[in-house]
Amino acid sequence: MNTPLNAAARQFRLREYPVKAVNSNTWQMTSDAPQEPLAGQLLVRNRWLSVDPGMRGWITPKRSYMPPVQPGEVMRAFGVAEVVQSNAEGFKVGDVITGFTGVQTLGLVDAQMVRKLDLRYASEQQYLSGLGMTGYTAYFGLLDVGKPQAGQTVVVSAAAGAVGSIVCQIAKIKGCRVVGIAGGEEKTQYLKNTLGLDAVIDYKAGPIASALNAAAPQGIDVYFDNVGGDILDAVLMQINRHARIVVCGGISQYLDIEKVRGPANYLQLIAQSGTMQGFTMRDYMSRVPEAFMALAGWNAKGEVKFRDHVLQGIESFPQAFDMLFSGANQGKLLIQLPSENA
Amino acid sequence: MNTPLNAAARQFRLREYPVKAVNSNTWQMTSDAPQEPLAGQLLVRNRWLSVDPGMRGWITPKRSYMPPVQPGEVMRAFGVAEVVQSNAEGFKVGDVITGFTGVQTLGLVDAQMVRKLDLRYASEQQYLSGLGMTGYTAYFGLLDVGKPQAGQTVVVSAAAGAVGSIVCQIAKIKGCRVVGIAGGEEKTQYLKNTLGLDAVIDYKAGPIASALNAAAPQGIDVYFDNVGGDILDAVLMQINRHARIVVCGGISQYLDIEKVRGPANYLQLIAQSGTMQGFTMRDYMSRVPEAFMALAGWNAKGEVKFRDHVLQGIESFPQAFDMLFSGANQGKLLIQLPSENA
Repeated sequence: MNTPLNAAARQFRLREYPVKAVNSNTWQMTSDAPQEPLAGQLLVRNRWLSVDPGMRGWITPKRSYMPPVQPGEVMRAFGVAEVVQSNAEGFKVGDVITGFTGVQTLGLVDAQMVRKLDLRYASEQQYLSGLGMTGYTAYFGLLDVGKPQAGQTVVVSAAAGAVGSIVCQIAKIKGCRVVGIAGGEEKTQYLKNTLGLDAVIDYKAGPIASALNAAAPQGIDVYFDNVGGDILDAVLMQINRHARIVVCGGISQYLDIEKVRGPANYLQLIAQSGTMQGFTMRDYMSRVPEAFMALAGWNAKGEVKFRDHVLQGIESFPQAFDMLFSGANQGKLLIQLPSENA
Repeated sequence: MNTPLNAAARQFRLREYPVKAVNSNTWQMTSDAPQEPLAGQLLVRNRWLSVDPGMRGWITPKRSYMPPVQPGEVMRAFGVAEVVQSNAEGFKVGDVITGFTGVQTLGLVDAQMVRKLDLRYASEQQYLSGLGMTGYTAYFGLLDVGKPQAGQTVVVSAAAGAVGSIVCQIAKIKGCRVVGIAGGEEKTQYLKNTLGLDAVIDYKAGPIASALNAAAPQGIDVYFDNVGGDILDAVLMQINRHARIVVCGGISQYLDIEKVRGPANYLQLIAQSGTMQGFTMRDYMSRVPEAFMALAGWNAKGEVKFRDHVLQGIESFPQAFDMLFSGANQGKLLIQLPSENA
């Protein structure tokens, strides 16, 4: 056993499932020494953690695409980590891997559940952001589920967020009229001035229906939804025939999981022969290389910009999580961990 | 002018838009003499009228796939009628036509908006029922939108209704496990004994979630939804990956159009990569012959049965309309009008 490692290991565990907002009873910080890796396992030290809205679903005791985290378990998180001790063939100390490495400084992972990263093609940070799941989610959600055609109007909610900002840029590349919805001056300026969207709506500034009508005078062909709630309902009233609504998230409905409000205007799907379709990245794992190549190419040419919001240290996890819901983050939320244990 | 015609003409007009259930202020019966047909018009005498849940949408002052009926106008209805006077090329007195002939004994139609029926292939009644829009809606909604595969589980709400009962039978022909949901003993017996479904749920008899779980132990692949509300929410919690929800109607939500409740469990579409898709027959008008041939063939072989609930006389319209919502009808609701003017 390795004393410095043990002394430094820290974890955020789920204490109890939140019913509404995450609160002081949700998380518990512990400092349990990691176990030795069993056969097929690796002991890894996290370098980067990804903080995503989907995490709210993992601490909801309800059927979903993955089993919920159990109270007492280390909180699930996608991360990039360095192998510190290997008991699995094909992995050696110093390898950099990605997978569900958890909200912890050090921990065990099954080697079969992670993959090695090749840092010649992208940085550790990029692999968790625009060139990782976030970028792939934008790519497949917009292009495969949303199927935008040049000249059509694409509306994106949480447009300044991690996934939304990439969706907006890909839609521009595809020749669409792109309308971004975000809250507050900083975000709307970013969408207008840095990303060059055709129209931007500050949903905090006034009624959404009339703003949408002005921003999308030809109606809405594709809506990439990260938020649900009032915005989804307003969009439904303005969709064009055969519109596609990509259901990527519903963050307005994550704060009170017992009172989720469904889209009251969903019967417009009949009137307009529209489609609402959900997806997750597990539908597209075999096509990750395609998305990686496309995103890396656009990024190299400056056609797709990534914006990350980086917090420092494992202690910042609760704050980072809260930012997802307050909207205080500017871009993809990441936590960077010291590469040498503090 | 023809005095006997004038004396006999009667119409149901929309008096005012109902906010909740249709009531005594909704309809107004009048007996205005029809005008002479202008160029391109026909004066027609209705023989059959179709009474459908979609009519509720036509008396709702909200954006939909057709403009709403205006107060004072004759209520819109699909019907089969006989030409009484023609001022349009290609139509002569005695021709039988179908189209929006309205809730009236006699009235004018634009010849371009109707089509002649060939009574060698089906009866007037069948053209308004299983071999007409009702059958086509079931055919395209299930096969094109729902895309059922042999061995998959198909759940149908309002399964004993006009569209639902045909959907159930086509799903059986396609080799699916078919679960029908209906209310009350008569309807569930019909589904079980006459249509031979694999499982039948009486939604009035107990909690829907556990009944669904028992009836669809392998989960739900296709849900053909005519009702919305609690049943849609219960289904969403039991859909399989890549499930298709065909949004055909939402009759549970038609009674208070200001308080439509959207599906609170719609975020299961993300978890299961599911699709909710609406449609109307206008998406499929070019393929009507395909549906007609298929349905006529199955019907001739006894593989698809049609059940009509026929009321007599124009006076029965308000009662027929109410039956759509009380569920008192058994099968497709039709009104037969006397062929000689009473």
